[in-house]
Amino acid sequence: MPFLDQRRSKASYTDVLIIGAGPAGLMACNALAKLGVKVRIVEKRPHNITVGHADGIQPRTLEIFQSYGLLDPILKQGNQIHASAFYGPDEQGSLQLKNRVAPVGVRDARYPFALALPQSAVEEALRDSMAAAGVQVERPIVPLSILVDEEARNSHDGNASPVHVELHDLHSNELGVVHARYVIGADGAHSWVRKTLGIAMEGEQTEHVWGVIDVINPTSDFPDIRNKALIHSEQGSCMIIPREGDKIRLYIQLDDRIALESLSGASAREPARNGQRIDKFSLGPADLLDVAQKILHPYTLRTEGDAIEWWTIYTIGQRIASKFAVNDRIFIVGDACHTHSPKAGQGMNASMGDSHNLAWKIAAVVNGWAKPSLLETYEHERRRYAQDLISFDKKWAKLFSGKPQTKEHGAGVTHEEFLEAFQTFGGFISGIGIHYLPSTITNTDYETAANANGKVAIGKRFPPHAVIRAADSKPVDLQDLLPADGKFRLLAFFGDEDEMGFRSTTSSSVGEIGIPEVVVKLSAVIEQVIGEFSSEAFDVLSILTVDGDPRESALISHLVSWPLVLRSHWSKVLFEDRKDRLFSSPSIVVVRPDGYVGPIASLHEAKTHLARYFSGFLKRGAL
Amino acid sequence: MPFLDQRRSKASYTDVLIIGAGPAGLMACNALAKLGVKVRIVEKRPHNITVGHADGIQPRTLEIFQSYGLLDPILKQGNQIHASAFYGPDEQGSLQLKNRVAPVGVRDARYPFALALPQSAVEEALRDSMAAAGVQVERPIVPLSILVDEEARNSHDGNASPVHVELHDLHSNELGVVHARYVIGADGAHSWVRKTLGIAMEGEQTEHVWGVIDVINPTSDFPDIRNKALIHSEQGSCMIIPREGDKIRLYIQLDDRIALESLSGASAREPARNGQRIDKFSLGPADLLDVAQKILHPYTLRTEGDAIEWWTIYTIGQRIASKFAVNDRIFIVGDACHTHSPKAGQGMNASMGDSHNLAWKIAAVVNGWAKPSLLETYEHERRRYAQDLISFDKKWAKLFSGKPQTKEHGAGVTHEEFLEAFQTFGGFISGIGIHYLPSTITNTDYETAANANGKVAIGKRFPPHAVIRAADSKPVDLQDLLPADGKFRLLAFFGDEDEMGFRSTTSSSVGEIGIPEVVVKLSAVIEQVIGEFSSEAFDVLSILTVDGDPRESALISHLVSWPLVLRSHWSKVLFEDRKDRLFSSPSIVVVRPDGYVGPIASLHEAKTHLARYFSGFLKRGAL
Repeated sequence: MPFLDQRRSKASYTDVLIIGAGPAGLMACNALAKLGVKVRIVEKRPHNITVGHADGIQPRTLEIFQSYGLLDPILKQGNQIHASAFYGPDEQGSLQLKNRVAPVGVRDARYPFALALPQSAVEEALRDSMAAAGVQVERPIVPLSILVDEEARNSHDGNASPVHVELHDLHSNELGVVHARYVIGADGAHSWVRKTLGIAMEGEQTEHVWGVIDVINPTSDFPDIRNKALIHSEQGSCMIIPREGDKIRLYIQLDDRIALESLSGASAREPARNGQRIDKFSLGPADLLDVAQKILHPYTLRTEGDAIEWWTIYTIGQRIASKFAVNDRIFIVGDACHTHSPKAGQGMNASMGDSHNLAWKIAAVVNGWAKPSLLETYEHERRRYAQDLISFDKKWAKLFSGKPQTKEHGAGVTHEEFLEAFQTFGGFISGIGIHYLPSTITNTDYETAANANGKVAIGKRFPPHAVIRAADSKPVDLQDLLPADGKFRLLAFFGDEDEMGFRSTTSSSVGEIGIPEVVVKLSAVIEQVIGEFSSEAFDVLSILTVDGDPRESALISHLVSWPLVLRSHWSKVLFEDRKDRLFSSPSIVVVRPDGYVGPIASLHEAKTHLARYFSGFLKRGAL
Repeated sequence: MPFLDQRRSKASYTDVLIIGAGPAGLMACNALAKLGVKVRIVEKRPHNITVGHADGIQPRTLEIFQSYGLLDPILKQGNQIHASAFYGPDEQGSLQLKNRVAPVGVRDARYPFALALPQSAVEEALRDSMAAAGVQVERPIVPLSILVDEEARNSHDGNASPVHVELHDLHSNELGVVHARYVIGADGAHSWVRKTLGIAMEGEQTEHVWGVIDVINPTSDFPDIRNKALIHSEQGSCMIIPREGDKIRLYIQLDDRIALESLSGASAREPARNGQRIDKFSLGPADLLDVAQKILHPYTLRTEGDAIEWWTIYTIGQRIASKFAVNDRIFIVGDACHTHSPKAGQGMNASMGDSHNLAWKIAAVVNGWAKPSLLETYEHERRRYAQDLISFDKKWAKLFSGKPQTKEHGAGVTHEEFLEAFQTFGGFISGIGIHYLPSTITNTDYETAANANGKVAIGKRFPPHAVIRAADSKPVDLQDLLPADGKFRLLAFFGDEDEMGFRSTTSSSVGEIGIPEVVVKLSAVIEQVIGEFSSEAFDVLSILTVDGDPRESALISHLVSWPLVLRSHWSKVLFEDRKDRLFSSPSIVVVRPDGYVGPIASLHEAKTHLARYFSGFLKRGAL
């Protein structure tokens, strides 16, 4: 490690060092801090951003925020989007409403809407939460060098800290070396970590140019100024995102041939060009508004002089990093591993999704529960997702930028093509449909239970499911009982109260009925699994099926005699309505700490399946 | 004013002085502060309470908190009660579950549950909200004298401050005189204000003795330890209230003959007595637990040594103040005007309800909108309510304390009698059914609209009503759009889109259809009413009826051409589902600033009704 000797650097140790404090870095940092991992996060920018930047939170990301207990501040500051309006030319080329529909892919979401809010609000919520766990962003700090100690890199178990990062504090001008067990590069599209490690970005070299402008309280007669609106006119295409308060955001693709013509044909401030390329530095917010106004014609959109809160013009390519991890010691997340257009509002979501996937895995290894090989699944799961994202983005961009069909342009993109693509990619856009490929932690061999309505799928997130707490009849959602606390949740589905020998009556006493066989069997399986690994890695929820008003169930009076492993707290026993039950016979579902589904085992296979599944990546024996 | 000359006292002026900073005083203070009224609040206790005291928030009170934007902190800290369990003896006298039902009177509530939480949490939420408006509790301060200046008391309009209160700051030992326009006595059951003004308490002189104990995380095999449980056994009666966290509260009526026998028969610490009366000062928490354990037999309830967070024994009578106001300058609220048993969890609710009723009236007079005679309606509305409360409490207490029916005691109270009373008084217990008698502000002459399902009633609170915002399709509840901001809300119901000449199509343009006649007429009525009085006193909401998905309504594209009075902000236009519509023809409903319904006028009568109604208590002319 030659660089260590060259300067007088202060040395320190940490479990995880995160480079970059945008949404991806902060999501990882908060998650790790809450899971008891020693974590530091450094950022080169001296100040927090306050306006602009990313603005969209998709339904799955709302569920993830809920799992961290962070939904409230996000919902309070965001603007819910409940409708998407599509505008296009009629046969004569005049702009008209084509369709106004619910946002895509929200049907099975816990929160059936998208949320628009400034990136700063997301970052603030994460920073506040981290601060409660004692972690602050250290800034302005830049990394100077990064090195993995070859000898120590394979000794994951001890306190080896084989990654050495030299940091430069731009404020104090001091240098320091951090010895970390793991490093996460969350340093954006121009990632220093990625470049320093020599990880290539794959994909097209074409750069697309986008203009974005945030306007406060515009005056407009456009009927969908408070809806997400995709306007695909003969003058070009733009997208309106209604924001918190009375703000709106406009996205305009500027390398779109049509938008360009519109700009050059009428703008008094005609921009300098390099052939077909715009010189983005010569354009200003007035140019962006000009284009938007032409696209919106005959509707009008006017603003006051000081109403422009933020604007930017940026270029972006559709590319993906060739790998997401080095030696499973250094990981890159977010824009550092994938870049794409802002059209489907995926940016922050994909980035935070990476960190959500990675954090619990690092914590499980650091906490000593899991084998280091668990870390391999990060790249396996998230790189494939990023590939899908970019392939979707390309298809979507082509439709978005194409000339719309009119009488004059018979070969243009039809509204139907546009809408169909929107619906096809619904689950992908909302994040609800994300389905991880089979691996150690999502092994499809372990699906043997009778999945009553197909709602639960290995590799997909556990769906919302309305249940009633047995002890106090409070309606809750089963998904809300799956917090991102690093634990695997064993959901024991017991089946029907009738099948267990209960009648819905208040008179039968425990003595008369005894403990049903299914209860004895399922609790034995769970006790064995928990005993075999670290009990701290598990939490158990019991789900019973009832008909009608659960308050009338005879089960309530009998639960006090059931094994404690099934009811470690009174809040852990739940009733589901027989009409909506997830499984038609007794079974156990394992939900990963990130809310994704592992084995779905029938009562008879549960013992073997669960033992084999957890042996794949958990260490045996209590700590 | 002789006392002013006797000492050197600092003099100050305020619009309203509140004496007492419990729930009633704080509710009034927060409401007035938010309405821009200059208000001070003094309290004799040096510190905030932190544990114990009142614990129940009823559904209507939750709605009221929502109207002040204070529901979130309350919900976060409270424990929702979704079931009430009734236990009584079987024929052999052995305790059994009789019934487990939803809490009463919640069916039409916006929040269909009761909430248990400490009084301290309610007070804290109100204090935090007040602080944001710049008002703090001044403490420890006691009032020494109160006087109404006879000459000035009738000049409500100017800045006359005819109520003079001498205060003693117990901390600095300084004296001061506050000259106030209005004084609110919120100083509890032993109210100094009430006694000083010579207001008598009417009602029975009998004092009932109650024991209350808060137990943290008890060990129990009682199946309803997390439900509200009313246990009416041969050993006496008690009530379990599940509280936040793993706490429970037990209420035991100690002057109940049966509970007394239970105590005397077995307690080693047999208390001193005066004939039939308990010397409450000789009893401790162990005695209370003893009684509760006997009542619960054969179920057990055990606690750790340090598990008792708070306990008290107190005596209470069922009484009501002979008047609630003096010269409409001094008002008493809360326990100062009514005392009753804790059995139906009404205490804090009745108290805060008084203040909620009074605050907007004082603010409307102080702000110059309303005639001082409006203040007369406080006593009119709230004293009748208090009378009903006490009469209900007596009936309820009789059932609660009576010996339950068994084979041996054939004449005892049956479970059916108990349950029937519980259901009969449902609306009263939940607060949802409160119905103010006709007066200037709830004049039943002004009901002419075709109330489609009878949900809206003059003198009752405006019910929850699911609507969709036209501009952005966000589902909201109409009740949530009625904040306690001091304004009267004019709800304009326009009727059906078909009746207005719209077809559910996106192709008809504004030019083809024009502005429907009903829109022109209703907007004219509203403009006239607003013009006649102070426009600041009003807010207008427009409600349109649609069939099916509102996103498909052609109305959305037409709203931009409607008169601005109907859509002062994009969020003010709402769609209701035709299936659930409140009125079957165009009409205007007036909702008072406290959420209670005034006139319900059909389109044809609206102009006359509204003008007459508001003339009754509002001043003419803009300010």
